[in-house]
Formats: sequence, structure tokens, C-alpha cells
Amino acid sequence: MEASRLFGGATRSLTYLYCINDTSSFLSQNPAAARKPYVPVYAKKAELERAVAELRGQLGEDAISTDDEDLHRHGYSEWSSINIDVLPVAVAYPKTTEEVSQIAKACYQHKIPMIPYSGGSSLEANFAAPFGGVSVDFCFMDKVLALRPDDMDLTCQPAVGWMSLNEQIAHSGLFFPVDPGPSAMIGGMVGTSCSGTNAVRYGTMKEWVVNLTVVLADGTVIKTKRRPRKSAAGYNLTGLFVGSEGTLGLVTEITLKLAVIPQETSVAVVNFPSLRSAAATAMSVVRTGIPIAAMEIMDEVQMGVVNKAGATKKKWKETPTLFFKFSGTPGAVKEHIEQVRELSRKQGGGDFDFTRDAEEQKALWSARKEALWSMMALRREGDDVWSTDVAVPLSRLADIIEISKKEMDDLGLFASALGHIGDGNFHESIMFNKNDPEERRKVQECVYRMVDRALEMEGTCTGEHGIGLGKKASLVKELGLDTIGVMKKIKASLDPLGIMNPGKIFDLQ
Amino acid sequence: MEASRLFGGATRSLTYLYCINDTSSFLSQNPAAARKPYVPVYAKKAELERAVAELRGQLGEDAISTDDEDLHRHGYSEWSSINIDVLPVAVAYPKTTEEVSQIAKACYQHKIPMIPYSGGSSLEANFAAPFGGVSVDFCFMDKVLALRPDDMDLTCQPAVGWMSLNEQIAHSGLFFPVDPGPSAMIGGMVGTSCSGTNAVRYGTMKEWVVNLTVVLADGTVIKTKRRPRKSAAGYNLTGLFVGSEGTLGLVTEITLKLAVIPQETSVAVVNFPSLRSAAATAMSVVRTGIPIAAMEIMDEVQMGVVNKAGATKKKWKETPTLFFKFSGTPGAVKEHIEQVRELSRKQGGGDFDFTRDAEEQKALWSARKEALWSMMALRREGDDVWSTDVAVPLSRLADIIEISKKEMDDLGLFASALGHIGDGNFHESIMFNKNDPEERRKVQECVYRMVDRALEMEGTCTGEHGIGLGKKASLVKELGLDTIGVMKKIKASLDPLGIMNPGKIFDLQ
Repeated sequence: MEASRLFGGATRSLTYLYCINDTSSFLSQNPAAARKPYVPVYAKKAELERAVAELRGQLGEDAISTDDEDLHRHGYSEWSSINIDVLPVAVAYPKTTEEVSQIAKACYQHKIPMIPYSGGSSLEANFAAPFGGVSVDFCFMDKVLALRPDDMDLTCQPAVGWMSLNEQIAHSGLFFPVDPGPSAMIGGMVGTSCSGTNAVRYGTMKEWVVNLTVVLADGTVIKTKRRPRKSAAGYNLTGLFVGSEGTLGLVTEITLKLAVIPQETSVAVVNFPSLRSAAATAMSVVRTGIPIAAMEIMDEVQMGVVNKAGATKKKWKETPTLFFKFSGTPGAVKEHIEQVRELSRKQGGGDFDFTRDAEEQKALWSARKEALWSMMALRREGDDVWSTDVAVPLSRLADIIEISKKEMDDLGLFASALGHIGDGNFHESIMFNKNDPEERRKVQECVYRMVDRALEMEGTCTGEHGIGLGKKASLVKELGLDTIGVMKKIKASLDPLGIMNPGKIFDLQ
Repeated sequence: MEASRLFGGATRSLTYLYCINDTSSFLSQNPAAARKPYVPVYAKKAELERAVAELRGQLGEDAISTDDEDLHRHGYSEWSSINIDVLPVAVAYPKTTEEVSQIAKACYQHKIPMIPYSGGSSLEANFAAPFGGVSVDFCFMDKVLALRPDDMDLTCQPAVGWMSLNEQIAHSGLFFPVDPGPSAMIGGMVGTSCSGTNAVRYGTMKEWVVNLTVVLADGTVIKTKRRPRKSAAGYNLTGLFVGSEGTLGLVTEITLKLAVIPQETSVAVVNFPSLRSAAATAMSVVRTGIPIAAMEIMDEVQMGVVNKAGATKKKWKETPTLFFKFSGTPGAVKEHIEQVRELSRKQGGGDFDFTRDAEEQKALWSARKEALWSMMALRREGDDVWSTDVAVPLSRLADIIEISKKEMDDLGLFASALGHIGDGNFHESIMFNKNDPEERRKVQECVYRMVDRALEMEGTCTGEHGIGLGKKASLVKELGLDTIGVMKKIKASLDPLGIMNPGKIFDLQ
């Protein structure tokens, strides 16, 4: 595509340019805002063109795309709770850390926002481009660079999917235990500090990252740590970049700890007469000290969704249901199953549906893993699914699920609930007609009431999806302006021009 | 003590004042340094006096001590690898977060350094006062404020010891699993991001802190999170303050996750013909996926130290030895013991010395826990012990222990080695005559060569003690100036006057 067409061809690109202009004119008309120390002013059209031309000169013509479909794919997501009417202006496709650094240097020089992109499956518009700028797509940086079985770690690039990664290293007897949605990639998983069903045993992303190679706003490349599994040396920069959603730097290499594939794994499913009895069982399992590998709750609606989507051969009873994963040495697994069976019986749990068949086990667990996809599969023309998560102190999980479900029911919304019940983390997926603004408004209000409810219970507006654009207001409610002020100071110190994924987590102004 | 005596009575206080003056005069004579954006200039004598008088007015006469012995106790440590010739000028004894905030406001206004103090057992001069200032001793903030068994968490103040904490909550069936030296307190444990023998199963401090209440440099009080066990909401400030050694703020309240006391626990000890065979056993235990509760290595010297110090009833064989802790459901513990017994036999491990007696179990494990104290107990008049730690990727632990031991032996130093072998973390304690500068120099060189060796192996200069004053140069070697530059920017953004525990982790200039 010619450079002259670059910013004129796509309505969406134009939208973006207006946005940039709007921002600049807002600032020139609001000298008070401009006086604030941290009000970014981004490049105008001519400078953007210069930067793209420069980068094409340095990295090759193909390294920067301005193709409309490409821009759309990098600025819009059907998974996301919200989408905006602005797209990135260009997509960069770096192949090395050095190229990422060159991109950052150019963007820094010309004041152009940079938005990292890997799996594109985040849910809170985490990779949307409200100020336009360059989406940095890591798809060519998708390699496992080094596997070190004796150190139980590996180093990889951002665009490796966690499932692919586990397939690639299975021969070593090791695996990476953080298991979010199937399409997530390590880069984005670092960005949102994600987790998944294994978190109750293995913890979340921040417990598994040993070090990061990060390209800072001005193109400087740093490594946050060397490669020990444990370190008390200096500030925990690794833990700061994990979960910062690309607002502090672009992660280009990740060293991950690995766990040993357990000697034996087993999956069991138990249905319960009520959400309360399922939750009571889960808590008694935790409090009895049975080291469960995973423990998930799915409500009757979600079980129906699994049945309707035909995700498993078996038809499941449509009641509140607990999914258990057991793992460990063979005798331990057997013992844990017996103890859990006894605890669930006490709460009126049904038969212990217990798949010995490895394939069925996989299908069963993937039905849980793909719950959101099952929900998506049931959409009719014009339907959309709003999927969100909150987390609360353990004892409040049953309360918040029950209250939130009742509210959805009362409003006649089709919504399913599932939760990482050992972590107090709960997801709700709500189906709605996207062409009906009134219905969307109802859903949105329900979601934010649920978030407020979580905060009242001393919980968080997101357990594992991040803030993105979608939950900025909730974060202010959650932590208050002084705490967010600390985050802003850190952001300003590392990204003084405000070009790293701007508009995410908090507003800069 | 009268205010007029305040800064004149103690030689050590005077030393401090000269230090302040020296710094100021250094700056006035070095305009280039003064031009740098972040060169702190601290209060002079008159201002210090004003601040102390103000604080006494606000908090009561007893809230600020300038007693010589008190100053000494807060600036000097017999545990520490180094001590300096400067002491704090005053010790503040706050009773509430509000009082800590008042102290910070006064120190901020008058540019006075603040150094947090709790257990005083850190090893790298983490609470030394190179620029004088006020040591903030949390000894009156030593309460468990709330225990919430149903949420499996608690909130406490900084000066609760972890052992006392566990005694106080034992009735709930829960415990806090991070287990550093017996005298450590939660505040300091947050500061140094410590760990201990349980880390191989439970992880380190940063995995167990839910939220922190922090008083910032200017007295602002923030809470880093609400109280969910899992959160992806905004920057991980909790994880940033953990391990920042008081250089970013003063932690006044800590919410900790708790774990369930396992159904059964067992301890076993096995001796090995060589360090290599012990290490090989440890690695095979890890790689077989046996979920060990703890696994420690002690060399023949350390075993001799335990014998000589009479820490247990039993006399131990003085060879390289592995200590195992097993925990879980009863059958699992039995199965894990059998599997480990088999693996150790394959490497020539001796009989599985297996204490069933709960008291002996406790004594045995505490012999491991109190290894450093045993070493200290063997000091003769004039002796000192230099205790330090490094961590390396798992596969290199045996190498570094072996090389380092040989070097000590060749130099005729009495040194013992012990390690958290499942984490690649290793401690060395070296006895020396503190009145013999030549011997001290030899020890110091040995220590820093060991650190360099760890870095060459892609390890870290400290696995769990922190940087303090002792390892600043090593940190520069470990991470390089660009990475430390990021830390400094963060520090400058949150502590623009450089008054929070200055001189620790990195130099501000």
C-alpha cells in the first residue's frame, strides 16, 4: 500500500485521525489540562506518516500494515465486553526484540501510541486503540526459544499459545500450569496477569514468570531478572510488568517456571441440589486440606449450555455442578477422591461421576474450559455475549453468585455462571441482542451492579481479565484515587509521553 | 532527654550529623551531581530538632527516643554481614497507621530519612541508617487485627513474629506458611520478600500477601488492594512494595493468605556419601512430581555444627544430608515417603531416619531452622559469622555449593553450607575473627566471588535476604544499569525527596 493512501483510505483510520485531532484541540482549548504534568499529546498526521515511512525503511515494507481489515482485526474483538469506534492506524509485525525496540524508538520520537497484541482474546478491550497508534502484533515472535528441563524453566516469545507451548514441551514431562481460555497467548497472559482452573493449586501468572525482556517506551531493552526460581534482589519488576496490560512496556521474551506433569490425574463431576450445597462442599474440601488440583462450579444454566452445544458425548444433569481435578501420586489421588466423595455426600451431592477414560476426561474438562465458547456457539443472529469476572473473599462467593443470578433471572436475561470456587473468582456470561440498545443497557447495568456488589464484599472488579477500557471506573471505586495515583506516578516515570497502550487501566489525565 | 541534648550527647549521633553535612557539602562542591534530578539533600541539625519536637508534641514525649542504646540497637546488628559507623538520630514508636502518617508528614516536610524496623534480624544491613534519620520501630504495632477463617486470611500489624502469629491462629486449623529465621516479623518479611524451607511447596512472601496498608513518603495512606485472594485489577502494587525494603513506603498493615494445616506431617533425614548424590536425589524427587512439603540440604560441616551446638537429642552422622518434610492426607504422606526412600536408595542414600515422635520431629526440623543460631553459638570471643545467600537455576545448585565449599576449605575458613535445594537457593555461613582485618577481607572476597559465580550461572545475588547495603554492587552486576534505572525512576516517582530508607538496594545518585 502506498504511503500516500495510508491515512486516507479507511473510514476507520480517519475516525482515528479525528480522534487525535480532537485530543490536540481539546488540549489547546483547555490550557488548564495542558498545564497538568502528564497530559499526553500525540503525533499528528504528517508525523505519523513520517514514522511509518521510517519504520518501513528500517524493517521492510511488510513489517507495517495499514490494511483496513488488519486494522479492524487489531482494534475490534467479538469477545470483548466493549468495543470503540477508533482503530489503530497501523499494525507493526516485529520479528525480534531489536525490531520492537526500533518501533518503540520511532514511536517515542514521534509520540505515537503503541498497543501490544498477541492472542486477541482478552475481554475488556485490553488491546483497543482509543488514541489510534500502532498495534504491535507479535505473531512472528511465536517460538519457544529454550527449554531447560533440568532447571524446570523455558524462555519463549509473546505469541506462543499456552496450549501449543504445553504440546511442544510435553516430551520433557513438564508443563506450564496457567490455563486461561484456549486461545490465549503468553504475551497477553503476562499483560492481564491471567489465571484459570489450575490457579487453586498452582497460582496465577505472576507466580510463574521468572523474568521478562521488556522494551520500554523509549526503546531501551531491559531484563527484569536473571533466571533463578527465587530472588529477593531489588524491586520485583517482573511482578510489576505482569498485569500492567502493556502500559509500562512491551514484553518480548518471557522465562516461565514449569511444573512436573503429575504422576496421575483424574476428573470427577458431581451435581448438587443447590448452589449453596455445592459451595459448602467446595469450602469443606478446601478447609479439610485436600490438595485439589482444580475445583470449578458451573450453574444449571451453564450445564444446559454444555448440553446444548454438544461439547461432550454425555448429557449432563442440569443442576449446580462441581468439577474436580485430582492429581498427584496414584495412592494420593485415590485418597483425595474418597475424601471429596464423602464431603460431597454430606452436602447432598449426587453420584460421583468419575471418568476413567482419558479421552472423556479431556472432553469433560474441556467442556468446562470452553464454557464461554459453548455460550458463544448458542448465539442467534444479532446476539452478543457479555462475559465478565469478579473475585471476592472465599466466604462470599456463593452469596454473590446467588444474588447476581437472581437479578439476571428477574430481568429475563439468559445468563450462565461459573466460578473458580477455590479462589473466590466467578464468571458470568450474559446473552443479549446487540441491536437492542435497551437490552444492552440492562446487561451493562447488571454487570456493573455485580462489580459494585463484589467491591462491597471487599472483592475486586476483576479476578483474571484485567481492567482494559471496560473496568476503569470500577478500579477507581475499588482502590480510590490515592492508590491509583501511585500507579499513575509509576506510569509517568516509565512512560513520560503516555504512549504505552494509553487509556487502559486508568485515564492519564 | 532534653531537646538541647538531643544531637550533642552521643558520639554516634554526631557521626550521623557529620554524615549529613558531608553529603550537603559534597553536593555544593559538585554542582554536576547537584544538577542530577534525584540527589536528596537531608535536614540539618536545627531542622531535625524542630521535627523531633513537633513529633513529641503530636505523639507524646515517649513516642520518640534519642537514647544512645536505643539508637545503637536500631542501627547495628550482630546478624548483619556489614555494619556502618552511622546510627539513626531518633527512634519513633508509632502505635497506629495514623501516627506513622504523622511521622512521615513531619519527615517529609523536614527532609528526614525514615527507616522501618521490626524484627531486626535481616542480614544485609537492611535497617542500617547511613544517612541517619528516624528509625520507625513498629514494636507497639504487633497485633493480629482480624482472623477470618472462612476467607482463609488475616490482617496484622508489622511487628508480629511469624511464629507467634502461627501460635495465635493455630486453633483455626490454618497457618501462615512462610518460615524464615525464627525471629523474623511480618513487616520485615514483607520488606525483604523473604521465604524459607516451606517455599518449595508454598512459595515466597509475595505469593501470600493479599494487600498492604502503606504510608507513603509524604504521609499519604494507601491500601494496595481489597481482599480477594486473586485479582487482576491494576498494577500489582502489593508485589512491588513486597521486597522494596522500605524504600517506597512504610507498611503498617498486612493482609495475609493462610493455608490449611495438613492432615498429616512427617519429617525424615537421610545422609549421603557426597553432596552430588544428595543433590541428585533432590532433583529426582522434584522431577518425579512428588509434592514434597520441604526439602533441605545441609553439608557435613553444618551437621557437625548441629551436633556441637547440641540442638537435638540425637547425634547426627556428619555427611551431606537431606531433610525432608512430607505433608498431606495420611495415605499420600506414606506414599510420598516410600517414593522418596526408593529414589534416595538409588543414589546411595543411607537409612531413612524417620522420626515418628512429634517432639523429636519438631526438634529435628528446628535444628535445620536454627542452623544459623547453632553456628552463632559456636563463636569464640572475637568471632563473627558472615551469613549470606544466593540462588541459581536448579541444575547448578550442586556446582555452586561444591566450588564455594572447596574455595573456603582451601583458604582454611570454617564455613557451613545449607540450601533450599528445591528452589536452587543456598546459604553459606562463614566463621571469622572480626579483629583480624586480613581474615575478614578473605571472607568478604570469598562471599563476593560466590555471588559472582551465582551470577555467571544466571542466578541472583540473593534468594531471600534482600540487597540492603550489603549487595548493592552485586545488584548492579546482576541486572545492569538500565534495569536499576527503572527501579530508580519508580523510587523517584514515589519518594521524590529520597527519604524512604535511603541508601538501600541502590544508590540514589
